Amino acid sequence: MIIKCTVAYDGYNYAGWQKQENALGIQTIVEEALEKIQKSPVEIVASGRTDAHVHALGQVFHFQSEIAMQPWQYVKAMNALLPQDIRIQSAEIAPEDFHARFSCKSKQYAYIATYDVTDPFAYRYKAPLYQKLDMEKMLEAASYLIGEHDFTSFSSSRIDARKPKIKNVRLIEIRNKGKDVHFLFEGNGFLRYQVRMMTGTLIEVGKQRIQPLDVQQMLLEKNKEVCRYNAPPQGLYLMKVRY
Amino acid sequence: MIIKCTVAYDGYNYAGWQKQENALGIQTIVEEALEKIQKSPVEIVASGRTDAHVHALGQVFHFQSEIAMQPWQYVKAMNALLPQDIRIQSAEIAPEDFHARFSCKSKQYAYIATYDVTDPFAYRYKAPLYQKLDMEKMLEAASYLIGEHDFTSFSSSRIDARKPKIKNVRLIEIRNKGKDVHFLFEGNGFLRYQVRMMTGTLIEVGKQRIQPLDVQQMLLEKNKEVCRYNAPPQGLYLMKVRY
Repeated sequence: MIIKCTVAYDGYNYAGWQKQENALGIQTIVEEALEKIQKSPVEIVASGRTDAHVHALGQVFHFQSEIAMQPWQYVKAMNALLPQDIRIQSAEIAPEDFHARFSCKSKQYAYIATYDVTDPFAYRYKAPLYQKLDMEKMLEAASYLIGEHDFTSFSSSRIDARKPKIKNVRLIEIRNKGKDVHFLFEGNGFLRYQVRMMTGTLIEVGKQRIQPLDVQQMLLEKNKEVCRYNAPPQGLYLMKVRY
Repeated sequence: MIIKCTVAYDGYNYAGWQKQENALGIQTIVEEALEKIQKSPVEIVASGRTDAHVHALGQVFHFQSEIAMQPWQYVKAMNALLPQDIRIQSAEIAPEDFHARFSCKSKQYAYIATYDVTDPFAYRYKAPLYQKLDMEKMLEAASYLIGEHDFTSFSSSRIDARKPKIKNVRLIEIRNKGKDVHFLFEGNGFLRYQVRMMTGTLIEVGKQRIQPLDVQQMLLEKNKEVCRYNAPPQGLYLMKVRY
């Protein structure tokens, strides 16, 4: 049977979700825990990767269960084996055709930046802001990013050129919350680095180093060299994956 | 001149405030930064030590400045040299007779415990609670701790036997805050481990493993063997030191 799991992690200590040769990916740690439970190698498939130092509150993955275990037993057994900064939130039996990546309808990311640059707890969880951001200008710039666009300009240059670059950004919210600025992004999917590059660009607008219309121009250029802004990873949170 | 500094730190990665032989104390790191600024060795004196993994929002220390530098310049220079989990909040010129430990009038500590045991961000900052706490019983138990008492029963066995054990606990607050339980303690001073042992004992009362009156009994025994409860260090925060 297919088990669908939701996992939250403090990504600061990890080299991202993806299994990799020379660094510790969260996927590897979860697979090793499952292998101990099932006593055979298990491959898990997530909704998508998250980069090094990026956090998740609601990452989703699935795997093929080969033993008779209730989903709640998986939660308990995995949390007993996983490090404390990776916590399974829930598990359920999914339909046989469920696929954590291909069945995904939309994703929600949050980004947290802070004016409190002397907060010793922030460096792992928020990006520092040394300058007051102009909220009106950021919201105008964000409005140009909403909708279905080719987001080539807001993607990693390492990205596979053949993959489709058209994504639908359904929602961008920007709010002051105490000394922090919270960004919220929702869309049918995001290219690699897209959320961090959009955030970094919106912050540049907020600092009035570029204008809102420059963002529209960058988008229209469909050129991965035009955006040099990439907000630091520790402020990014994968909040929810919808199916 | 005497400079009085307020410092906040995420203590999770450190072996406590105190300078020590085989582990990294926060005091050492701050002294090394000041030595670079003043180009000569500096000794700093804090309001008191904090244990390994314990945090501070308002730890206070003083030192003798031997160079002509404005307090705000010290803040800037130190924060440029210190790691990001140790942040100087403020600095000011203090009267010549100011002493961070001896001039201290009262201290405030907070302790955070959480019912959210699947929060991957909690392990560094909160103690996990696997059982609902009885708030009424905890408040009754706390009432017996308020006031001037000999707190021998709630102190470390490593403590110097000749040091006075009488302390005045002026305030204990216990509040539910979302999925967390916040404890607040204020007093003219606390013995080593006293806040964590009082918290651990109150939590035992909350779990109904012991009764509120048992806490009064423990206090009256003035015996450092009677309390076996010590709440974990990562939930403890030195909030404020008053002069």
